[in-house]
Amino acid sequence: MRTRPYATTSPTRLAAALLEVAARSGLDAASVREVANEAGVSIGAVQHHFPTKDEMLAFSFRTLADRVLNRLSNVDPDIDPGRTLFAALSQLLPLDETRGNEVHVMSAFTVRAVTSPSLSAVRSATLFTIRTGISRLLLEAGTPDAETRAALLLAAVNGLALDAAASPELYPREYLTHALHTQVQLALAGADVH
Amino acid sequence: MRTRPYATTSPTRLAAALLEVAARSGLDAASVREVANEAGVSIGAVQHHFPTKDEMLAFSFRTLADRVLNRLSNVDPDIDPGRTLFAALSQLLPLDETRGNEVHVMSAFTVRAVTSPSLSAVRSATLFTIRTGISRLLLEAGTPDAETRAALLLAAVNGLALDAAASPELYPREYLTHALHTQVQLALAGADVH
Repeated sequence: MRTRPYATTSPTRLAAALLEVAARSGLDAASVREVANEAGVSIGAVQHHFPTKDEMLAFSFRTLADRVLNRLSNVDPDIDPGRTLFAALSQLLPLDETRGNEVHVMSAFTVRAVTSPSLSAVRSATLFTIRTGISRLLLEAGTPDAETRAALLLAAVNGLALDAAASPELYPREYLTHALHTQVQLALAGADVH
Repeated sequence: MRTRPYATTSPTRLAAALLEVAARSGLDAASVREVANEAGVSIGAVQHHFPTKDEMLAFSFRTLADRVLNRLSNVDPDIDPGRTLFAALSQLLPLDETRGNEVHVMSAFTVRAVTSPSLSAVRSATLFTIRTGISRLLLEAGTPDAETRAALLLAAVNGLALDAAASPELYPREYLTHALHTQVQLALAGADVH
């Protein structure tokens, strides 16, 4: 395999290669060797940018999380908070192949976060950002106990997403969108407007 | 390390060893070699009971799932369906070290199920059993759209449980039980009795 010198790769390209490998074969398969292979660079080039595997994983997790947060921040707010929440949170469900891969790899990082403080920090910062956005919408809608309901809305979406990624045939698109719609309505129950 | 002949081990003992390794070091660490080491038997003894690693993983996942289902089926039903649901579902939250380890390992199996049909089958059978029990309680309580709400209740618990396992310091016991109580109340909203 042709390899390129250090200068022709970058942490961002290596993270993209890692996320490709992880989506295809699972995060366990994303060794330094496999990432180098996927990116078409030497193992030394990967180690030049990421002295430890932990640094490579944490950077890749942040790259993936930023991609998702970026999509969320581009959702146009609707006058109806339920529609805004639905549009935003459907970005987190495996409703197409890209989001299916994201859910798979995000969940794998989360499981690994149980034994890795650096991954745990990325996970909790990401959740905090998303939860804060949901809370704000629920508070504006006059929802009681908005923070708990925001956390539950996000947890339900993440829980459904993981199971749908593991058994796609049991979770058709219509089922997932109906479930999301229902949880959004439950979260808004008792709000001033909806 | 002293090893024992085939006859002194069993699939159940090996599964227990695998679950120990996975709880301590992650499911990735649960190689045939590590499981043999943990159980104090030879690699050949593990291969005698489990010709492939996939069989070892699927049997271990079923063992863990049965342990959880068994605890759920031992929950005493209360006259108040909300209390029964709370008591049952709190078995799935990391409210002590045993349940924290279970959540970690269950989630790791679920992520791996994305690329393993045999693990996916165990996961979906387990969820189906739990969801059916929740649905039955919600239906008896006269809850609208009981099946969707049952799925959401379980998804929210599983989503919260995984994040709590990944960042235990951010999810104290009181927070988890308050969140579970809130989701149970949302699931029962509009029911005939509660």
